Amino acid sequence: MKTACLALIAAAATWMAAVALLPTKGNATPDRSSPIFGVTIPEGYRQWELIAPAEEAAPLNEIRAVLGNKVAVDAYQSGTLPFPDGTILVKLAWKHIQSPDFRPASIPGAATTVQVMVKDSQKYADTGGWGFGRFINGVPVDEAQHRTCFPCHEARAKAHDYVFTRYAP
Amino acid sequence: MKTACLALIAAAATWMAAVALLPTKGNATPDRSSPIFGVTIPEGYRQWELIAPAEEAAPLNEIRAVLGNKVAVDAYQSGTLPFPDGTILVKLAWKHIQSPDFRPASIPGAATTVQVMVKDSQKYADTGGWGFGRFINGVPVDEAQHRTCFPCHEARAKAHDYVFTRYAP
Repeated sequence: MKTACLALIAAAATWMAAVALLPTKGNATPDRSSPIFGVTIPEGYRQWELIAPAEEAAPLNEIRAVLGNKVAVDAYQSGTLPFPDGTILVKLAWKHIQSPDFRPASIPGAATTVQVMVKDSQKYADTGGWGFGRFINGVPVDEAQHRTCFPCHEARAKAHDYVFTRYAP
Repeated sequence: MKTACLALIAAAATWMAAVALLPTKGNATPDRSSPIFGVTIPEGYRQWELIAPAEEAAPLNEIRAVLGNKVAVDAYQSGTLPFPDGTILVKLAWKHIQSPDFRPASIPGAATTVQVMVKDSQKYADTGGWGFGRFINGVPVDEAQHRTCFPCHEARAKAHDYVFTRYAP
């Protein structure tokens, strides 16, 4: 009886392990690439060079920083426009809170969104060559929100290849 | 006459070139290391990893970013306190201006100061193990200003090894 029971437990454990190894695409976990564009959060981006910090007023009330990969930094340094294919920019945003140590200072609070722009002039020809991804806790927001990215960048930043951020000296 | 004149010009040119090659330490150019501490702006710091952005209210009205070398980043990641010798933090500051492209956003304007903290527990034993440098256009500010660094950090950030900035997730 004891042996049969152990065998059953072992079989169950094997089955659970097999299920855990199944591809998770589908209903099991949310897709980590953005709707429309298929943009993902790039590996190792937190080590990328700072392009510039920024702040966004209420109601968002955020403090932000844009980081760029090497292609992006080289383009900024050389003044290359449009940005070359392979450029990736990542904007990190946090709630803007008062420093507990020094009242005149504001510092990052809880992380809010990570936003990614990827340059691929062929793949994203309909949106100025840029693919967009907007993520909350690593999960992309819905398609409707992603439909708002390009029109805003097109209306306000077309002359700078649809990119708002300038390199902070 | 023409030959003598050319010879004179050549001699003058040689003298000027020689003067240009003389060491410039002394009266010729200002010392680039901070008073009291002898801290300099570290080579290549602009490529260092972002620790966190920040903002400082009026009257300074600045947007800021703190970058750290690898020793600093490793200490932040592992929660190591006090920071080990060799830690260097650099705070860049810019005037906080409204984005011309998007009214709710504020972005970096003109650069104001670069401020450096270097950890060397022996060399800077009298100031919590930290040396300080505050630079405007690459030139350190005066000794009186440098005397204010440690008292403020000691009064407000002693529990975090005299460092205000936390790593932004």
